[in-house]
Amino acid sequence: MDTFLLDTLLRNFLAEDLEHGDITTEAIFSPLDQAQASFVAREPMTVVGMETVAARVFGLLDPAVACAGAVPDGSRVGKGEVLLRLSGATRTLLRGERVALNLVQRLCGIATLASAFADEVRPIRAKIVDTRKTTPGLRLLEKYAVRASGGANNHRYSLSDGVLIKDNHIAACGSITEAVRRVRAGVPHTINIEVETDTLAQVEECLACKVGVIMLDNMDLATMRQAVTMIAGRAVIEASGGVNLETVRGIAETGVDIISVGALTHSARARDIGMDWRE
Amino acid sequence: MDTFLLDTLLRNFLAEDLEHGDITTEAIFSPLDQAQASFVAREPMTVVGMETVAARVFGLLDPAVACAGAVPDGSRVGKGEVLLRLSGATRTLLRGERVALNLVQRLCGIATLASAFADEVRPIRAKIVDTRKTTPGLRLLEKYAVRASGGANNHRYSLSDGVLIKDNHIAACGSITEAVRRVRAGVPHTINIEVETDTLAQVEECLACKVGVIMLDNMDLATMRQAVTMIAGRAVIEASGGVNLETVRGIAETGVDIISVGALTHSARARDIGMDWRE
Amino acid sequence: MDTFLLDTLLRNFLAEDLEHGDITTEAIFSPLDQAQASFVAREPMTVVGMETVAARVFGLLDPAVACAGAVPDGSRVGKGEVLLRLSGATRTLLRGERVALNLVQRLCGIATLASAFADEVRPIRAKIVDTRKTTPGLRLLEKYAVRASGGANNHRYSLSDGVLIKDNHIAACGSITEAVRRVRAGVPHTINIEVETDTLAQVEECLACKVGVIMLDNMDLATMRQAVTMIAGRAVIEASGGVNLETVRGIAETGVDIISVGALTHSARARDIGMDWRE
Amino acid sequence: MDTFLLDTLLRNFLAEDLEHGDITTEAIFSPLDQAQASFVAREPMTVVGMETVAARVFGLLDPAVACAGAVPDGSRVGKGEVLLRLSGATRTLLRGERVALNLVQRLCGIATLASAFADEVRPIRAKIVDTRKTTPGLRLLEKYAVRASGGANNHRYSLSDGVLIKDNHIAACGSITEAVRRVRAGVPHTINIEVETDTLAQVEECLACKVGVIMLDNMDLATMRQAVTMIAGRAVIEASGGVNLETVRGIAETGVDIISVGALTHSARARDIGMDWRE
Amino acid sequence: MDTFLLDTLLRNFLAEDLEHGDITTEAIFSPLDQAQASFVAREPMTVVGMETVAARVFGLLDPAVACAGAVPDGSRVGKGEVLLRLSGATRTLLRGERVALNLVQRLCGIATLASAFADEVRPIRAKIVDTRKTTPGLRLLEKYAVRASGGANNHRYSLSDGVLIKDNHIAACGSITEAVRRVRAGVPHTINIEVETDTLAQVEECLACKVGVIMLDNMDLATMRQAVTMIAGRAVIEASGGVNLETVRGIAETGVDIISVGALTHSARARDIGMDWRE
Amino acid sequence: MDTFLLDTLLRNFLAEDLEHGDITTEAIFSPLDQAQASFVAREPMTVVGMETVAARVFGLLDPAVACAGAVPDGSRVGKGEVLLRLSGATRTLLRGERVALNLVQRLCGIATLASAFADEVRPIRAKIVDTRKTTPGLRLLEKYAVRASGGANNHRYSLSDGVLIKDNHIAACGSITEAVRRVRAGVPHTINIEVETDTLAQVEECLACKVGVIMLDNMDLATMRQAVTMIAGRAVIEASGGVNLETVRGIAETGVDIISVGALTHSARARDIGMDWRE
Repeated sequence: MDTFLLDTLLRNFLAEDLEHGDITTEAIFSPLDQAQASFVAREPMTVVGMETVAARVFGLLDPAVACAGAVPDGSRVGKGEVLLRLSGATRTLLRGERVALNLVQRLCGIATLASAFADEVRPIRAKIVDTRKTTPGLRLLEKYAVRASGGANNHRYSLSDGVLIKDNHIAACGSITEAVRRVRAGVPHTINIEVETDTLAQVEECLACKVGVIMLDNMDLATMRQAVTMIAGRAVIEASGGVNLETVRGIAETGVDIISVGALTHSARARDIGMDWRE
Repeated sequence: MDTFLLDTLLRNFLAEDLEHGDITTEAIFSPLDQAQASFVAREPMTVVGMETVAARVFGLLDPAVACAGAVPDGSRVGKGEVLLRLSGATRTLLRGERVALNLVQRLCGIATLASAFADEVRPIRAKIVDTRKTTPGLRLLEKYAVRASGGANNHRYSLSDGVLIKDNHIAACGSITEAVRRVRAGVPHTINIEVETDTLAQVEECLACKVGVIMLDNMDLATMRQAVTMIAGRAVIEASGGVNLETVRGIAETGVDIISVGALTHSARARDIGMDWRE
Repeated sequence: MDTFLLDTLLRNFLAEDLEHGDITTEAIFSPLDQAQASFVAREPMTVVGMETVAARVFGLLDPAVACAGAVPDGSRVGKGEVLLRLSGATRTLLRGERVALNLVQRLCGIATLASAFADEVRPIRAKIVDTRKTTPGLRLLEKYAVRASGGANNHRYSLSDGVLIKDNHIAACGSITEAVRRVRAGVPHTINIEVETDTLAQVEECLACKVGVIMLDNMDLATMRQAVTMIAGRAVIEASGGVNLETVRGIAETGVDIISVGALTHSARARDIGMDWRE
Repeated sequence: MDTFLLDTLLRNFLAEDLEHGDITTEAIFSPLDQAQASFVAREPMTVVGMETVAARVFGLLDPAVACAGAVPDGSRVGKGEVLLRLSGATRTLLRGERVALNLVQRLCGIATLASAFADEVRPIRAKIVDTRKTTPGLRLLEKYAVRASGGANNHRYSLSDGVLIKDNHIAACGSITEAVRRVRAGVPHTINIEVETDTLAQVEECLACKVGVIMLDNMDLATMRQAVTMIAGRAVIEASGGVNLETVRGIAETGVDIISVGALTHSARARDIGMDWRE
Repeated sequence: MDTFLLDTLLRNFLAEDLEHGDITTEAIFSPLDQAQASFVAREPMTVVGMETVAARVFGLLDPAVACAGAVPDGSRVGKGEVLLRLSGATRTLLRGERVALNLVQRLCGIATLASAFADEVRPIRAKIVDTRKTTPGLRLLEKYAVRASGGANNHRYSLSDGVLIKDNHIAACGSITEAVRRVRAGVPHTINIEVETDTLAQVEECLACKVGVIMLDNMDLATMRQAVTMIAGRAVIEASGGVNLETVRGIAETGVDIISVGALTHSARARDIGMDWRE
Repeated sequence: MDTFLLDTLLRNFLAEDLEHGDITTEAIFSPLDQAQASFVAREPMTVVGMETVAARVFGLLDPAVACAGAVPDGSRVGKGEVLLRLSGATRTLLRGERVALNLVQRLCGIATLASAFADEVRPIRAKIVDTRKTTPGLRLLEKYAVRASGGANNHRYSLSDGVLIKDNHIAACGSITEAVRRVRAGVPHTINIEVETDTLAQVEECLACKVGVIMLDNMDLATMRQAVTMIAGRAVIEASGGVNLETVRGIAETGVDIISVGALTHSARARDIGMDWRE
């Protein structure tokens, strides 16, 4: 992830919490007061964003804040582990605390969930990927958390960088074949065409059109297995719909290549991270 | 919530998902194609944001989209209920779908959780309020969801519009008394001073300083009850820490005025809302 | 005041004066030409903003400019005193001169007027505060000038961080009692409720509602004294309307806590500060 | 003045006062409540900005607000005259009130002062113009107020659209002649070159260089008269420095073409305009 | 192309030319003056952008301007043909004229060149595509001009929505095989991997890695033909380097699928379009 | 040109090409990989922008990139000359490459064309200037390229900083005399008034009005010579229309002062500059 791109986001988040200033802190501390603090895991988790996000939040407020000991992205830590150490102006540490915590608690929640899904399918070939069901305004960060978690990957980022032909598109064109033809004529050849299918007949039609990726949407395991056999390596296969930690291994065992999980971003539970002040 | 303030947020969210355009949709649909769709609850929930958020997302993309039948904020609906009806250019409905759903699923999740907490304490006097543990970039919307849910309220919005003197502030000043003195000299008289306390001695000191709000942080129920008795209406009392749906009623019964619940925004589960396309 | 928040303002002000560049200076000076200059008081004044505003204007244009000897905020200086010394690229000093002067002349004007009001009421208990009658776009800076002047304070910052129930609000609700009830149900408990009153009957009603702040609007001194007696410490008392340097002491002597003065920001005369070039 | 350019300014000013919303008004009024109000002059003044600025502030918040009866720019009105009538949502009228008043009070203050200066020199040939001593962020509006006042004009807008060779520029080049040579080589021929002079010798040198505008800076009346005689129509003559309502006519009578008055924008007193609510 | 996305660009372009206003036009015309004008082709060309760009420029300045008779994108017109008719406030037509012309002259230049290339290869199978060699800030518009010209297509839009493994990437990894492995592990499966090759050995390695697109960079026709034979439909083939109107047909005849032409955007000559004022 | 002003432009250009990141490079290189590269002229050209633009692009992405050996603006170089040397993180060099090249190729194209025109008229008195026919969004840079090329100058920058009375303006007023009168009353005296003329009668009228600049628009050489004689030094003379490298010397020899050439910016061919990677 690019600091150049990230900074605008972080500045907006800081402005949201600071509005016209931290009135409590400004009344109590002088600009010269110094303090030290640590980010500490209050429960086990997969860590993401200590260096890139948390440290950067404080750095944007004040370049003089020193950040050290950032746990690398993808680390799995236990309760009580120190994730980042900060030292600098007390005013700055207090001003950045909430924004930094709100962000990394969420990102570590996503990374932890992504790890859990990845662990389930590790022995098998399938890859876990996210979706566009991200928190509005946080996609850059949430997709980063998924791929930096150490076991999962990203699906397309936006409506601009991937083609996914869904039922509406198909209905409007009359057939998958026509939809694929129009898309192929219109979009760059660098984009792989993916089609959402509900039935094996649709899978068949996709194969005839030579699409790059076939999504099996909400199919039962038996149908999925048939689809995998039918496709036989002629397209990348993505399973989608109703994926959770209980079902994911069974889905992976059908032989699909990719399993997309909206829950990674829309239902991850924020992890508990605290900011402890040190003497 | 103010359309004037909201629009900038929504435009950024749309730009995040649209980047340089919806390449699938542009390849398949003409600008003249028309469609109809409905937002439908796929599970029971307290609804927030149909008119103000979902309809506005489409309106910003294209003022010609018609939105009707928006369920009012705070409504409790069952599975299958139609929450909003849309009709307009197919391109627009497809372009706005994901952003609108990502938003209202999250907002209805918050509203539903807020309702659940409010239901627990309704017979009693206490008010449920949120915290600053909101998703970065979404505070305006998330705090709106809390207060539009029909049973909960907002705590301070940002570091600018409320004073909360925490342990760091107290430690830095040497005493609550001194911290309150400095804050009282520095902040507008329109702001109520709140102090976080861990012990009854601190509560006592707050009373001596005549602070407006005393937060009882992570106290057990017995201590809370003592604090309530000690305060005897001389300050607003806020309970905070370790609040969940199991514990909240007990806390309320201690006689506190306000119970703040970080989980309202940092741990609400997104509700399942679908966008169904109609013939 | 927060550099983080201030910089965006200052960049806009610089862009306003620079548009596509300083064509005179670019034609005459090379980027290597160096110069020294001083900000000098051309009349007595209370100084605000030398370090935080003037020096920052030049620093944003070019981090290589050195600023020294900034007179601290709140200092009272005589004619001829040097307030800030600058040295750096001639191009930068010329480019920033007008913006920096326009700002500090205005801020020192406000600080000087605030000092004068504060001097009048110093022996007495009352505090002088500003209002929302600030120059659009300059509120952050103007409210800073008031509180950094050394004797005055801020009223609420915006419509978001304070409640002031005025005659329209009361008329719309039918009574102060109802207005207070609605506001108390809707706004955070961290906000103190203030009500504008014109009569002693309204003051009475406010007391019955236990509002935090009672504004006595445009009352004569005798009525004010009665109100103070009636309130007897049960609410903070703010006097407002028709306050000037002649009347302010009399108002303070009635025993009110707070005197709000719109003139601090809407009618302060800019102080004369020059930028002298040194050999 | 261009609505296209103005709107960004006004949106920023509204955001400054609204932050995350008008909490008092939102608690008390429903979105359906309607009201009527009028802007009224509380003292005599020259009016500027009723249609372009005040009405636009409300229109940006809510296009449904109706504005009527705006007094035209440049009108001279007496105490009690109605300047603008508004009708629309009570919430909108309350949200926009302070921003609109803060702006037009300032603009009418400038227009009134500009009129007063213009009245002094009307029988004579000289034109009154403003300077770059405007309030940061308000130059577009303040220069508009000057020229819409009906008797005064604008000097250059920024460092980009005019050349003014000052003492520093001259000192750096060694002579006016060299400074003019460099500028003439570097700036567009559409820009008139103006040089600041302190002595008649400098005026002479300007004439030799054929500059377009000669500024007589802080000269006494006798010297000015000599300069006017010496120049004899070969350049536009601008008088600058120490101009006030007492001295301006005498300066005009020396025969100069232009008199620039920093006070128009840096020292205009805001005029008192109220917003009266009607039944 | 999306009005939602385009408007921000166009507003910036207008602000660049308008700065603080059109001083000539404001001095001469009243806001009530009306005029009519037409965009007219002064030479033959392929037209793009009349409705989406030119009309929108005027619409953003003033919604009351009426635009009619816009020639559809992709039309080929002769000298003298009317491309768009405008009627509205004279001030608006003058303010928008230069920005609108500068844009459509450039876009029609690109479209005309794209048409010429497409004409050369029409009988054959190959597609003409653009590159990222676009004018900074104009990519959205220039890529639109290419695909709306009626015969050419877009390559990837940015560094985000396509993978192109170039010599540096290969050198850093030691081999194409390793580079492809890393990319495949890291990027979404919805993105087709493209590799730049200089030799047939590299083409061979690409085939072994099963990459989706093989770029033949600066190969002579004989080598290209060999590559096409070798690839035999197992990958999309893109020819790149040294393509011009003389060489393009020969390249197409080798059997490649895609020919990328940087010249489409970096070397298109602006077409001559005038804005004629009508009585 | 001002770094302060330029940076916003460059950041937008980088964001356009980077969108959510360089997915190829991020997959292949670690943040620690280092590289060296040079900008090299692939054909003869006049160079502009190596230090100010190309080096700044990389500096904005990452302040740790070292840039050295930048060829000064206005240098004329041969094929193969090294124009700039870079060393830093491989990721940064790859991310900035395309934006930097797209910019300097265009700027050097403009500078080279400007040089060629200037060479044609060097022995004579006339100056070559640009127009407002610049690429939207690039005016700051393109006008800089013109004047930094070493032989040409800028015409007015925008509609705000120059007056050019064209046929529409004249028609609307009834006469040049009336148009000039209105403009003179409305615009700052620091702006030189220019009038576009098609006939000698119009030139005569301009002289009677004492305008500062007379544009001879699309006149033949004989008429131009007559106009020059007629004007006899009483106004600056600008020739415009149909100027190319074949005709420019003849036009210059008529004795005009200024020759404006739209082609400088709208028809300059981008120069070929490569970024070579070094071991």
